[in-house]
Amino acid sequence: MRLEDLDTPVPVIDLDRVEHNIRKLQTYCDEHGLRLRPHIKTHKLPALAYKQLAQGAVGITCQKVSEAEVMAAAGIEDILLSYNVIGKQKVEPLARLACQSRLSVALDNELALSTVAEASDLAQKSIAVLIEFESGNNRTGVQTPQEALELARKVGEHNYLAFEGLMTYPLGTLAAGFLAEAKPLFEHSGITIRTVSAGGTPNVWSAHEVEDVTELRVGTYIYHDRSIVGSGTAHFDECALHVHATVVSRPTDERAVIDAGSKTLSSDLVSPEYGQGYGHILEYPEAVITKLNEEHGIIDLSNCGAKPLLGERLRIVPNHVCVVTNLHDEVVVQRQGQVTGIWPVWARGKTR
Amino acid sequence: MRLEDLDTPVPVIDLDRVEHNIRKLQTYCDEHGLRLRPHIKTHKLPALAYKQLAQGAVGITCQKVSEAEVMAAAGIEDILLSYNVIGKQKVEPLARLACQSRLSVALDNELALSTVAEASDLAQKSIAVLIEFESGNNRTGVQTPQEALELARKVGEHNYLAFEGLMTYPLGTLAAGFLAEAKPLFEHSGITIRTVSAGGTPNVWSAHEVEDVTELRVGTYIYHDRSIVGSGTAHFDECALHVHATVVSRPTDERAVIDAGSKTLSSDLVSPEYGQGYGHILEYPEAVITKLNEEHGIIDLSNCGAKPLLGERLRIVPNHVCVVTNLHDEVVVQRQGQVTGIWPVWARGKTR
Repeated sequence: MRLEDLDTPVPVIDLDRVEHNIRKLQTYCDEHGLRLRPHIKTHKLPALAYKQLAQGAVGITCQKVSEAEVMAAAGIEDILLSYNVIGKQKVEPLARLACQSRLSVALDNELALSTVAEASDLAQKSIAVLIEFESGNNRTGVQTPQEALELARKVGEHNYLAFEGLMTYPLGTLAAGFLAEAKPLFEHSGITIRTVSAGGTPNVWSAHEVEDVTELRVGTYIYHDRSIVGSGTAHFDECALHVHATVVSRPTDERAVIDAGSKTLSSDLVSPEYGQGYGHILEYPEAVITKLNEEHGIIDLSNCGAKPLLGERLRIVPNHVCVVTNLHDEVVVQRQGQVTGIWPVWARGKTR
Repeated sequence: MRLEDLDTPVPVIDLDRVEHNIRKLQTYCDEHGLRLRPHIKTHKLPALAYKQLAQGAVGITCQKVSEAEVMAAAGIEDILLSYNVIGKQKVEPLARLACQSRLSVALDNELALSTVAEASDLAQKSIAVLIEFESGNNRTGVQTPQEALELARKVGEHNYLAFEGLMTYPLGTLAAGFLAEAKPLFEHSGITIRTVSAGGTPNVWSAHEVEDVTELRVGTYIYHDRSIVGSGTAHFDECALHVHATVVSRPTDERAVIDAGSKTLSSDLVSPEYGQGYGHILEYPEAVITKLNEEHGIIDLSNCGAKPLLGERLRIVPNHVCVVTNLHDEVVVQRQGQVTGIWPVWARGKTR
């Protein structure tokens, strides 16, 4: 089956490019002595997690318990849950995960610690704990090395918990500064930092410059997207997921409407310096997807020489590929223009 | 089971409010002699489509073929597909739909017309055709009454197709002006406009002011959302879908982070005059959800007197409820704080 025979809109992944991207980052990590623990939030597919592991990844990263459940059910045995897990409803699912895999959990507060401790007691299985710290993202994470140390000390008070190390996102000078301060503090307290996990595709090629980092936790590199290309980290010909769409209306000379809207591409934008609108159309790079409704993508053609015809098929590099994956029940897999797989996105929609 | 026992994040619908909203709009339509054909894109649930039909709706509206397939499979017999259906891949699914339901399709171009004609030939079943026209949305739709007339004439050239009328969105002075011009043109040509279908919840209470409109095609009214409240069309106490979330981090005094990000709430914003950020937090209306990552909602508490604690549960009225529905595999149904249903969102993710 050829790609042009597929109904649209449809996300299509190029397996040759996927394998190129996996190899390229694994080679970089191997050269620099970094352990790679890919974040599966980008693809949400057991098949691709196994490809990452086969190339040398030490395990995977999941953001939510329910996402990890899918991967554990697919037989993946080493999982980092990089998210504060809080509440009585999470205890039993987390305990089940601990029975199925070597589980690590990152957290930044005592309530999450007590949830994880309850789960490990219930499972009677060890869970490794990383402390998340702030490094400029202004999201989660303890604010100071002292806070990290206090929380790390409390990890040791629980039977089945073991302090593993520190985790942050993004990786840059603030992270380096925090680590430089934390390291002697922990050493002085006799607490060993085994792992320092850092994340983020945009600055991945300079990860080796921050010493102390032992492990990389990145997701988007497997597909890349318009945002990553904008940051200079990849080229458009390394983007491995395209959304194929059809022009369903040409109401005026300067306007085309495609059958891919926010339900297909998401409403995520990129930094203005990376480009305008809701995706990059490979066939018409001057066209701007100015607006998305749920099922309509409205395209301004005023900067285009040639213009798409009614019924024409377009390929779009999405702004943010992880959220696109989450919108679709399945992705089509291709090699050299031939369909070779139709894979259910088993870990999509897993928000709990 | 009480709502506070549910794992989060989770979308919860209040069935009493849903029924209030259905009754209120149906009463309005009945009083003004308007036929109501709800757009199911908001709820994507057969159970609620049946509630709408039971109160007097004449049928339903779906945006995509695959969405209509779910509703037809649930036994719903009168479906308007308000979208240009184009391409050979759509012919057989559309023919199957025509065999299962009284099907109408809206379109604005000849290529869509030929796809619909092929489907009706294959099904050997009649399909009614509406011509979509532009009324200020700058999306799809023919631009002039003359274009509408030419397309309507071509409908009659196909064996199983019947011209039904005109369709537009939104409803306002431009729509009224188009209709005033189109009506005599069609009359003069001997083509009867049986149906004029207009859409949009924000201006729904003034729909009766545009004479010639016979049918309303609205979706959001069943749940309402922050955008609709902002437009003055509903109150917060009519909003029937809340996202329940948990505070999973309180890294600083002025920042809370919840377990609901763009995978739960979507990245859709509202007009700045309706409010800032990614949703309205009922317990802390001064709080602003300033940023969403996929699984994190970052909340600025600097305007709040009281501030949420770590582990506290919050209820959020989403900016745009239709896209929230599309993100979740199921919604929890409640009456007066007690869980009464957990319904799979069967028509979610149906983009084709």
